[in-house]
Amino acid sequence: MTLSKRTFLGAAIVSMAAFSAIADEGMWQPHQLPQLADTLTKRGLEIAPEKLSSLTEFPMNAVISLGGCTASFVSPKGLVVTNHHCAYGSIQFNSTPDQNYLEDGFLAKQLDQELPAAPGSRVYVTESVTEVTDQVLASVTSKMNGEQRYQAIEAKRKTLVAECEQAAGYRCDVASFHHGLEYFLTKKLEIRDVRLVHAPAMSVGKYGGDIDNWMWPRHTGDYSFYRAYVGPDGQPADFSKDNVPYEPKSFLKVSAKGVEKGDLVMVAGYPGRTNRYRTADEVQNQFEWAYPNGRIMREALIDLIKVTAEEGSDARIKYESTLASLANYAKNFQSMVESYHHSDFLKRKQKLEKDLNAWIKADKSRQKQYGKAVSSLAELVDQSQSTQARDLVFYYMYYAQAPQMAKKLYRLANEKQKPDAEREPGYQDRDMTRFKASLARMDRRYAPEVDKALLMFLLQEYAKLPKEQRLPTIDSFFGITDKLDSKALSAHLDKLYASTKIGDAAMRQQWMETDLDALNKVDDPFIKFARSTYQERMMLEKADKALTGEFQQWRPQYMAALIAFAKSKGQPIYADANSTLRVSHGQVKGNSPQDGLVNLPFTRLEGIVGKDTGVEPFNAPAKQLQLITSKKYGDYLLPSLGSVPVNFLSTVDTTGGNSGSPTLNGRAELVGLLFDGVYESIIGDWDFNDDLNRSIHVDTRYMLWVMKYVDGADNLIEEMDIVE
Amino acid sequence: MTLSKRTFLGAAIVSMAAFSAIADEGMWQPHQLPQLADTLTKRGLEIAPEKLSSLTEFPMNAVISLGGCTASFVSPKGLVVTNHHCAYGSIQFNSTPDQNYLEDGFLAKQLDQELPAAPGSRVYVTESVTEVTDQVLASVTSKMNGEQRYQAIEAKRKTLVAECEQAAGYRCDVASFHHGLEYFLTKKLEIRDVRLVHAPAMSVGKYGGDIDNWMWPRHTGDYSFYRAYVGPDGQPADFSKDNVPYEPKSFLKVSAKGVEKGDLVMVAGYPGRTNRYRTADEVQNQFEWAYPNGRIMREALIDLIKVTAEEGSDARIKYESTLASLANYAKNFQSMVESYHHSDFLKRKQKLEKDLNAWIKADKSRQKQYGKAVSSLAELVDQSQSTQARDLVFYYMYYAQAPQMAKKLYRLANEKQKPDAEREPGYQDRDMTRFKASLARMDRRYAPEVDKALLMFLLQEYAKLPKEQRLPTIDSFFGITDKLDSKALSAHLDKLYASTKIGDAAMRQQWMETDLDALNKVDDPFIKFARSTYQERMMLEKADKALTGEFQQWRPQYMAALIAFAKSKGQPIYADANSTLRVSHGQVKGNSPQDGLVNLPFTRLEGIVGKDTGVEPFNAPAKQLQLITSKKYGDYLLPSLGSVPVNFLSTVDTTGGNSGSPTLNGRAELVGLLFDGVYESIIGDWDFNDDLNRSIHVDTRYMLWVMKYVDGADNLIEEMDIVE
Repeated sequence: MTLSKRTFLGAAIVSMAAFSAIADEGMWQPHQLPQLADTLTKRGLEIAPEKLSSLTEFPMNAVISLGGCTASFVSPKGLVVTNHHCAYGSIQFNSTPDQNYLEDGFLAKQLDQELPAAPGSRVYVTESVTEVTDQVLASVTSKMNGEQRYQAIEAKRKTLVAECEQAAGYRCDVASFHHGLEYFLTKKLEIRDVRLVHAPAMSVGKYGGDIDNWMWPRHTGDYSFYRAYVGPDGQPADFSKDNVPYEPKSFLKVSAKGVEKGDLVMVAGYPGRTNRYRTADEVQNQFEWAYPNGRIMREALIDLIKVTAEEGSDARIKYESTLASLANYAKNFQSMVESYHHSDFLKRKQKLEKDLNAWIKADKSRQKQYGKAVSSLAELVDQSQSTQARDLVFYYMYYAQAPQMAKKLYRLANEKQKPDAEREPGYQDRDMTRFKASLARMDRRYAPEVDKALLMFLLQEYAKLPKEQRLPTIDSFFGITDKLDSKALSAHLDKLYASTKIGDAAMRQQWMETDLDALNKVDDPFIKFARSTYQERMMLEKADKALTGEFQQWRPQYMAALIAFAKSKGQPIYADANSTLRVSHGQVKGNSPQDGLVNLPFTRLEGIVGKDTGVEPFNAPAKQLQLITSKKYGDYLLPSLGSVPVNFLSTVDTTGGNSGSPTLNGRAELVGLLFDGVYESIIGDWDFNDDLNRSIHVDTRYMLWVMKYVDGADNLIEEMDIVE
Repeated sequence: MTLSKRTFLGAAIVSMAAFSAIADEGMWQPHQLPQLADTLTKRGLEIAPEKLSSLTEFPMNAVISLGGCTASFVSPKGLVVTNHHCAYGSIQFNSTPDQNYLEDGFLAKQLDQELPAAPGSRVYVTESVTEVTDQVLASVTSKMNGEQRYQAIEAKRKTLVAECEQAAGYRCDVASFHHGLEYFLTKKLEIRDVRLVHAPAMSVGKYGGDIDNWMWPRHTGDYSFYRAYVGPDGQPADFSKDNVPYEPKSFLKVSAKGVEKGDLVMVAGYPGRTNRYRTADEVQNQFEWAYPNGRIMREALIDLIKVTAEEGSDARIKYESTLASLANYAKNFQSMVESYHHSDFLKRKQKLEKDLNAWIKADKSRQKQYGKAVSSLAELVDQSQSTQARDLVFYYMYYAQAPQMAKKLYRLANEKQKPDAEREPGYQDRDMTRFKASLARMDRRYAPEVDKALLMFLLQEYAKLPKEQRLPTIDSFFGITDKLDSKALSAHLDKLYASTKIGDAAMRQQWMETDLDALNKVDDPFIKFARSTYQERMMLEKADKALTGEFQQWRPQYMAALIAFAKSKGQPIYADANSTLRVSHGQVKGNSPQDGLVNLPFTRLEGIVGKDTGVEPFNAPAKQLQLITSKKYGDYLLPSLGSVPVNFLSTVDTTGGNSGSPTLNGRAELVGLLFDGVYESIIGDWDFNDDLNRSIHVDTRYMLWVMKYVDGADNLIEEMDIVE
């Protein structure tokens, strides 16, 4: 790895300023933002662009992660605003049939009424981001094989994390940028006492429910409030009555004036993952094989669960969230496949690759530098696709919880044989809180008769694989041959499920705490399954890691080629999303998702009345409907709209993980919360389309309107710094 | 019946001119149109409004019925244009795997290449419409009971039809207007030799298929051409090589200039049925009981067929059209229920009724004239709803074809005992061609294992009815008691289906031709079923007719009250649709179906490329896609759109039966063909909403563009009178 990465990036970005068209694509690392100064200023940025690049200054240090979601501080007393769907678990956790905060909403009028968030809830405040590329790659040589490379990189990452986490109260991560071209260490203050402060009724916060998910027009009040608490000494601490509100270094002002069509908006947050730099071959395979087959698999599992766990049964209740998640991504995949077939995405990818290859070929030094990366990456992609039918089945085996849980427990006992630092991520001491939570969760999500049906189906799919892709120990354990005897297999599974204790929480807990010797003596069929297949499964994992190690050799070099090529054309480059802090910018803008159809940039209060049926998820509170009918707009009217704006569309580039992100205007005031994208932008994880990609935000004017008139949350409005 | 109906109507309509707002609601009888003159002229009518009222003059005599669809003459040589979906059966009838006109389209370059339309295809040319209210009600007295009234009216209607059909080559109908307040006799020339002239490929004519059905944006080339032929003597004749093209009295010019946003459009056609004047109680019951339960029943039948007739099986192929129709109306009902809950329809109905009652109460003479009608109608509505659970099951029994066919055959044998004129409509000599066709059709739509499953399900539903609503002979035939033994019933049905010959076309034909005595001796289980239940079913039918006769007493008087009340407020009144010739008017106009969303009035060629996936139903011909990509707009460009318009929206008031209707501009030139409505306008059969109700038309510019550039149908473009 001798490429000078920083030079590439810097140069590429500086050249953007010469670009006349303003691009909306890009999830920028804060340190890149000053280089976008001209663009941002032209769009309406009123603060100094440099202010956006300092993680320890306003406004960036007000932007926090909840792990999976983004949030921001909105008061000097640690008040946090995020999406309702990000606080959902905590609202649910505190709800009972008698005091149903999920249904009715929740408001703490004073500090001592605030409720503990769901176990495991965290607020992460990024304090520093340091480039550690040289350290991570220090021991890597070009002569290493894949497995060696993977291990060398993993070992360094773990060491860096462990060193960083020596500081009490911190959580650290080493994130790979440009697929291994750069590594950055993020150090985050980990606040463990998080409390629920306010949530609107579900009929506001989740208005439209799953039906409106990924849809426009939208009328969702997707906001909720937490508060971060620390010990009296100001340090992160477990929940205690003696804890005090955390005082953040800065917080966002909340705009009651909001934005207009065409205004600049910026979203700061922790987008999870994008795939904007995959090869044409990978794209084609993903959209023509992986997503279509993933959707088929998901729909088969959905049908199976529905048939096995009848509507209204206890089993069905346990599988509702599994069903929702299966359906959610079936719809997600479907959307992406539709978008792909309606677009010239593949053609553009192929052209880019053709142009890249021509550009490399045109120059000897480039040939030398990048030639091998392109061809080697192509070979690796081929190799990884050759077992994708097996990989798909193994991936969905996750849904058969009994064997899955047994494998996890058996793995833990094995990992515990090693020193903590050498254990697989997920099995280190730092992971045990989450591990325990996952053991406990199984009780609420597992019904043996459904699990058995799922395992039966998945094993039937597994049995269809060519013999050389199957694992002999799995075949042998379940009695699978080239000619599957389904009846015998079903009878066999009946026996396994009749005798296993894996469904017993206390037993799982005991197995978690036991050591390998003891676990080896346990006479449970699924533990036996985990044991008898362990060596082979580890071999497979090792091979996977070796392949990853091969990718770690060539994908960074391929990225370097792409970046150099882009630079030669004066085009900007940003890294794929990787759950680190990014800033996207764009403007408030509708679009035409299809010929003949127009999405307006704002929805209005009246749209709620128009959608309302009185039946969930279109059952706005009666008081709210009455306020709308009587045109009680208060101070939150947008005159050009003739009403209070509810949600708005923007061109900013976001993805999962951005949920709850503050949407900022040109003065870095909070004007909204990012909470979703339109259906046509789901493919945005792969391909950003200026015309179709739109993010959906809840407007702060709507949030304040509901808080003031519907929920009477005056104490919070008082606490925040509202810009009138 | 002593009300002077014509006076009411005339006055109500004249008063419309004083109305300042232009209403789009209304399916007007042509003779009413001169009274709308001011409105039409203001909107842009350029011909004399009186021209629209004469059925025997241009343009009305160019508008024809195909029975279920509308069409129009577009050349002096009997060339007829209608929707692709109206000619679908004829295109399919002429298609073979080798010559698949449905897939590839069809074009006769000269007369002798034109193909016979599907058996039973007809062109009906309305030649006169005469009011016959006095004749129909001549023998009706207020002292008659319901059954007597029903029979008296039916007898007169049949007599009038029979007299009218004395003229060879004519088909006549007596239609009831305002639910029995007026009756009109329609005399239609019945052209029996109809030939297929031209149809675009299905990937144009049915572009978007069932997915886009009832949807906007739309890109469907829903047009096809027939030609009407008559004998050398100019009289209707069966198909013969000696026949010659029919020469219509007039035909429509076809506009290549088309319409712009805001232009007047009129639709002339044969809308089937609307329910705009039902009581609030009827509306509430329909939307809160009948449609929701109808949808549940349809979805249950769909699931059952899908499970019983596996995808890809022969049985599934036979049930595809049944499935499509069940799903089509399940979606239709769903839309109406959604619209109902999103609207204030019921509240408005209730207010109208309250106002009507107050208006009646305010005046003694009104009380005397209308008071009883309102209360009596309410009682009858209550009475008819009391058995609706049973009526629903009996209605869907239609889908169990074996018993249904046996009942029809047994009924025919019984009806044949009477003189032709006294027989039930559907069993008269004039109906026998259609009757035979329905016997033959069963072969293509019936699989005994599916039929058995449907009958089993329907009988289970039937068994849930309270005993007093069940029929003892049905109970006894199937062994149904209050406690249903499903296993025994299933075994019983197995036996019936194993021994019946009802699935045999030759046997059905034989049973159709046999007399009652012979049929009584037939040892087929379903014929026995029909026989053993016949008397009871006839009693039920008699009771239904008696109830209809009661409605025939009070609903016309209720309508008279409504009309008088509307007149008092200067509001216009038109009759509910009843498959007679009507004219609607409106303008080319998009809308906002939901807050935040806008439907533009036109779609463009480019939208086809945008939707296209290459997979049916989004698989436009390659040649067409290429023409669009190269912007080959020819003479059909709409400059304000920057492309050729494909489909457009208008505010005209239409419903089923209007399919294929000519859409006319202010000079009565053809600018489009009505072919659908948007999702939100499905409820339009009950409630016309100015903001939401939109009809969808195929633009003549698109039709001509495809004909010229894609299909090379220059001979037809030559034949038509094109207005450039």
